[in-house]
Amino acid sequence: MIKTRFTEMFGIKHPIVQGGMQWVGRAELTSAVANAGALGFLTGLTQPTPDDLRKEIKRCREMTDQPFGVNLTILPTLVPRPYGEYIDAIIDSGIKIVETAGNNPKPFLPKMKEAGIKVIHKCTSVRHGISAEKVGVDAISMDGFECAGHPGEDDVPNLVLLPAAANVIKIPMIASGGFADARGLVAALALGCEGVNMGTRFMATKEAPIHQNVKEKIVSSDERNTALILRTMRNTSRVYGNSVAHKAIEMEGEGKTIQEIGPYVAGAKGKVVYETGDLEHGIWSAGTCMGLINDIPTCKELVERIVSEAEEMIRGKLAKAIAA
Amino acid sequence: MIKTRFTEMFGIKHPIVQGGMQWVGRAELTSAVANAGALGFLTGLTQPTPDDLRKEIKRCREMTDQPFGVNLTILPTLVPRPYGEYIDAIIDSGIKIVETAGNNPKPFLPKMKEAGIKVIHKCTSVRHGISAEKVGVDAISMDGFECAGHPGEDDVPNLVLLPAAANVIKIPMIASGGFADARGLVAALALGCEGVNMGTRFMATKEAPIHQNVKEKIVSSDERNTALILRTMRNTSRVYGNSVAHKAIEMEGEGKTIQEIGPYVAGAKGKVVYETGDLEHGIWSAGTCMGLINDIPTCKELVERIVSEAEEMIRGKLAKAIAA
Repeated sequence: MIKTRFTEMFGIKHPIVQGGMQWVGRAELTSAVANAGALGFLTGLTQPTPDDLRKEIKRCREMTDQPFGVNLTILPTLVPRPYGEYIDAIIDSGIKIVETAGNNPKPFLPKMKEAGIKVIHKCTSVRHGISAEKVGVDAISMDGFECAGHPGEDDVPNLVLLPAAANVIKIPMIASGGFADARGLVAALALGCEGVNMGTRFMATKEAPIHQNVKEKIVSSDERNTALILRTMRNTSRVYGNSVAHKAIEMEGEGKTIQEIGPYVAGAKGKVVYETGDLEHGIWSAGTCMGLINDIPTCKELVERIVSEAEEMIRGKLAKAIAA
Repeated sequence: MIKTRFTEMFGIKHPIVQGGMQWVGRAELTSAVANAGALGFLTGLTQPTPDDLRKEIKRCREMTDQPFGVNLTILPTLVPRPYGEYIDAIIDSGIKIVETAGNNPKPFLPKMKEAGIKVIHKCTSVRHGISAEKVGVDAISMDGFECAGHPGEDDVPNLVLLPAAANVIKIPMIASGGFADARGLVAALALGCEGVNMGTRFMATKEAPIHQNVKEKIVSSDERNTALILRTMRNTSRVYGNSVAHKAIEMEGEGKTIQEIGPYVAGAKGKVVYETGDLEHGIWSAGTCMGLINDIPTCKELVERIVSEAEEMIRGKLAKAIAA
């Protein structure tokens, strides 16, 4: 067992989080993570309407009696999403842990606080972490350049970002981006964090509700098989480096507009990839930690392995290094 | 005290290395690092001729009776350097530890091995690490995207690069790029390494033979103040993000040739920066770990602080996390 301020604050067994992942964070995965003693999040906007989210929360509850949360990513979208109504659905459903990401969650905090919800805000820079702490979130999920999805535009890896953030942020912080095993968990603790968030690693689990082809591709790929799209628009996204991603980057290089590139990078096509296993159908998210993923375990096997190997490393290699 | 396979192999007290730094790795710094119980390297090519290197080694010996090494960076230069003669100077001077960087050191290994020299090869990818192990180097210094100088073109941060390399490399490996404090050292051990290499952190020490302005600029800057130049030429270099670096990047964006950009990025101008403290005179190297550097200690203070805080973390925070 590894206990930290984070496990205590959120009442979970292990300091491991499965954060929001568009199209992936559904009841099958989140309940399996919860049953493994880690903290899983349903991805709010994966559900087309607030009512669908209500149903998904209910479905997840039927699969676990352990705590889980809901992710709400607040970003400008082509079709505006009714964030307030999603939050109502979260509150009505009795959810007590929310992961926010994207924009500053300040406008939504009073309502959530009043409902007794603890908020973890995901951000990609020290300054945004400081802002989030100031507006009153309960914990920070700090996301480095390694991550799948949105790493921001600063390109600061976690080895530097996490301790720099830990120098100034007082609330519990978990480390996100580049984590896949016990070595990463111990490194995160050393770098000033209280746990890790993993995305890509949880995609390659038996319970992740995505096509087996995607899982096997993650296993067979390495740390060099990602691509950064939309850099020129300062809306960088790290995705699997397939032909669609490289086409998008080529179009950016040619000065094409977002309207022209849009159809190539439409997230809805990623949904089809996950459903059909057609890996070149569209862009789909994957992080650099693919280089550390070599199997498709159950969530329980994965979480227990990470925790037991981390304990073993602290008791073994690290303790021995200072005992000599 | 922290003992690892690396400290044993190289007969040093602490698992901390001050690797080669052009214009910075001179006798003043390297001897101070050696006297602090860490492993310092004179930068071979900072000396204009092999005979000058002989003199510099002698000068360093007069300042320490502890082991130190010489770095030899094998890269194409505008004016070809007589690497064989530099190696003769190293061997003749009785140096027993060499850090190679840049190209594969294979052609130079037999001569060094015959002279009883142990070779640490610095590289920036798993595949180059495997090659170096195969040709017979004794240890690897694995350099992530965080680093000052040449991070390669893969952009893989150490959080992923190090454990991915540790999965396949059997000889001792030290971690380079992004390291500046005890947190980094413990993280490096957790990620599968046997010590850390630090460059930028050693620049901001009392003994570093560079202008005080440079040291103070490192202290006042953060993790966002570096710039990557020569990306478009696939010869990326991470340098301090001053006006000269940004001008070079602008010229690259305009499609200017290396002949046109060359005068802006000439390394010899960095030498003038270090000598005069005119921070905008030319490009000079600095890594992302500037965000973790807040003082200008002596090398002895720095090394002892890192080791004692690392021990404290292993005995304290980490041991407590698993004892709960």
